[in-house]
Amino acid sequence: MPSILPKAVRDLAQELSRLPSIGPKTAQRLSLHLLRMPENVVRHFAQTIESLHRSVQICKECFSLAEKDLCIICRDTSRNRSIICVVEGPLDVEAIERTDSYRGLYHVLGGVLSPMEGVSADQLTVDELFNRLRQEEVKEVIIALGHTMESDATVRYIMAGIKDLDLHVTRLARGLPTGGDIEFADATTLSAAFEGRRKV
Amino acid sequence: MPSILPKAVRDLAQELSRLPSIGPKTAQRLSLHLLRMPENVVRHFAQTIESLHRSVQICKECFSLAEKDLCIICRDTSRNRSIICVVEGPLDVEAIERTDSYRGLYHVLGGVLSPMEGVSADQLTVDELFNRLRQEEVKEVIIALGHTMESDATVRYIMAGIKDLDLHVTRLARGLPTGGDIEFADATTLSAAFEGRRKV
Repeated sequence: MPSILPKAVRDLAQELSRLPSIGPKTAQRLSLHLLRMPENVVRHFAQTIESLHRSVQICKECFSLAEKDLCIICRDTSRNRSIICVVEGPLDVEAIERTDSYRGLYHVLGGVLSPMEGVSADQLTVDELFNRLRQEEVKEVIIALGHTMESDATVRYIMAGIKDLDLHVTRLARGLPTGGDIEFADATTLSAAFEGRRKV
Repeated sequence: MPSILPKAVRDLAQELSRLPSIGPKTAQRLSLHLLRMPENVVRHFAQTIESLHRSVQICKECFSLAEKDLCIICRDTSRNRSIICVVEGPLDVEAIERTDSYRGLYHVLGGVLSPMEGVSADQLTVDELFNRLRQEEVKEVIIALGHTMESDATVRYIMAGIKDLDLHVTRLARGLPTGGDIEFADATTLSAAFEGRRKV
């Protein structure tokens, strides 16, 4: 059966369904929802999308998102420039900033090494990280990547590249999440929590 | 903590999170996904959204979505004009057309009566339905609304409005869905299925 929906609705649903976490049914429902919204509100929404690329830049120093050449954190002179926290993406920076407990700089890799998905080191900002660590007054590197095979490989790659530098390098602790019950923890997390146990 | 994300990203995330089934986290992730997509693809997406209202009309006869004055079904001379199937929205028309087992016309109410959500009869196309049933050669009305309190009230309202007309009015059967296990059926569905049982 061909769809009875107008082409404009089908086109929009198809474009929406290409986005992550939006299936074809949700895409149809979203299209009809947009159609029911006032035309000027929807036009404003379209303009927000259209201006996105023009309004956002990549920070020349840490490769996070920025409105100017440098991001809001790299421009902040009160930040401690001797510590760099290495993360995968800008949302990780956002999450760490929300803890309000870190005052150093960041370095956004833009992903992790993944031979399976064809992500190699030259698609990440690893060389730029090495340059930063070599040129600047950095004393400490905190690697804030998740605990997956790809992250582990990325950490090994970074460590190999900076082994001749005198840096204090740490990685975020593995263990039970706050509020996490032991009975629901997976075996790998639980054994990592045992290994990393600390004196009370 | 103020967000470190550029204003354009935050604005887009906020607009996206107003849409149904998109929470603030998903909205952020979608915004960053759009930012990683090629600029011309995103521009095309924005244009699809912007042209939506201009390209879609409401069918003058059945109030479904249309590209011209009349929708594709009302324009189809091979459809049986003596049967009208009453539905809540255009996606219901789409779902029924997909069964390929109905050849009559439709009438899209645009919702169901809901005092709780402030939906009264004048916000629906109930009067227009009454006019169609009075003026045209309609013999049969099939009410294809779900089984909720609001739908039931809407059916009673429609029945009261057409009680002086000589029409064969039916409502879609209630019962167990295909593939539905009896043990997982709720009590209301199960008792409706008992009530509507048919000779094998």
